[in-house]
Amino acid sequence: MRISDLSRLSGTPVGTIKYYLREGLLPPGRPLGATLTLYGEEHVQRLRLIRALTSRGGLSIAATRDVLAAIDQPLDPLATLGVVHYALPTPVDAAEADAVDEQSLRVDELLAAMGWEVSPESPHRRALAASLMDLSRLGMEYGTEDLLPYAELAAAAARLDLDRLENIEDRLRLAEHAAIVVLLLEPVLAVLRRLAQEDESRRRTAWARTTDGAGPRPDPHPADGR
Amino acid sequence: MRISDLSRLSGTPVGTIKYYLREGLLPPGRPLGATLTLYGEEHVQRLRLIRALTSRGGLSIAATRDVLAAIDQPLDPLATLGVVHYALPTPVDAAEADAVDEQSLRVDELLAAMGWEVSPESPHRRALAASLMDLSRLGMEYGTEDLLPYAELAAAAARLDLDRLENIEDRLRLAEHAAIVVLLLEPVLAVLRRLAQEDESRRRTAWARTTDGAGPRPDPHPADGR
Repeated sequence: MRISDLSRLSGTPVGTIKYYLREGLLPPGRPLGATLTLYGEEHVQRLRLIRALTSRGGLSIAATRDVLAAIDQPLDPLATLGVVHYALPTPVDAAEADAVDEQSLRVDELLAAMGWEVSPESPHRRALAASLMDLSRLGMEYGTEDLLPYAELAAAAARLDLDRLENIEDRLRLAEHAAIVVLLLEPVLAVLRRLAQEDESRRRTAWARTTDGAGPRPDPHPADGR
Repeated sequence: MRISDLSRLSGTPVGTIKYYLREGLLPPGRPLGATLTLYGEEHVQRLRLIRALTSRGGLSIAATRDVLAAIDQPLDPLATLGVVHYALPTPVDAAEADAVDEQSLRVDELLAAMGWEVSPESPHRRALAASLMDLSRLGMEYGTEDLLPYAELAAAAARLDLDRLENIEDRLRLAEHAAIVVLLLEPVLAVLRRLAQEDESRRRTAWARTTDGAGPRPDPHPADGR
């Protein structure tokens, strides 16, 4: 298809497509004569991914290029997963190097308690320490004991994530889906938690009203189904 | 304490403190004569919260003012929770009104399946529909059956969240902690999932290498502990 068709099909202005081509985010089309270049279905797909990463995922053009470069590397499927995973930006900007150190021990302790094998180079170690530092400064200490149940839930989520990626034969498709599952499922999970918080809050409120706020917490799943 | 001490203790420049006072984010101090105003421990705490919400939480000054206004409302504790919860920005910007509608049914279905009671006005319904729309456009359909296990994990996380807020007697402290738990625990959970994904990916990789990638998926918790 011509660039005009690619623009229409993907809902991306021609100028933006040319910008992505210049920036190396989009692979070049197939030149057919001096003035005509043809694009394929893979360009439509790639444009959708770029849009998802930049708009929803909040990635910069530079970060998007890194992720796409990782996706395009000729590695075996499982190595690809790792490369894509590290190319994605961490959910937390862990800039304050010094303040983070006192929380690093807590992170090491948690990883050991979970039996998680995580590279010493992982940016997520530092990101977790930085987040815990923030909470600590606000007077909310989250010790290893407090974090363990959340880590168990994260482990269960990771198993669901990886299940979704199994049995994808095509390497490029796998890498693309890995980026989507890691990055774009994040807001889904965050929103689900907010919805669940409202429901859980209502359950406890309703119960508090009927008992004047005294007594033990109610069963969150009462026998009548509500 | 004087504004200079408040600045030193909170690590906030005097100019920034004056800006927060003008914008109504920080309650005024106690005037002592014509040129001296005294501030207390509550101002130090409030400055820390403002910093956490704006820097780590990524809130605008306007959004921060909304949250702080919600925190300062004279409501009973449980109503406060709800107000703070809705004042916080949703993790997803659900601007594209039209495209979202086809996913709303899926959201209703999921809420019904979970037995979750969520206000029809909740911004999180639309946010979830928007996120699912993104995934669908990228060829990743997440149906109710796919979302249910994630929703169960979100429900478990919400129970842990609410447990943390129970038994906080002081209403202002409760509201403040609610904002922190809802907003600032979000990156912690996101990072935990990334760490868990690396570990889970390693487990499956190691297994795939020893069996040449064929056969059923391994037990993610083998009997030898690793």
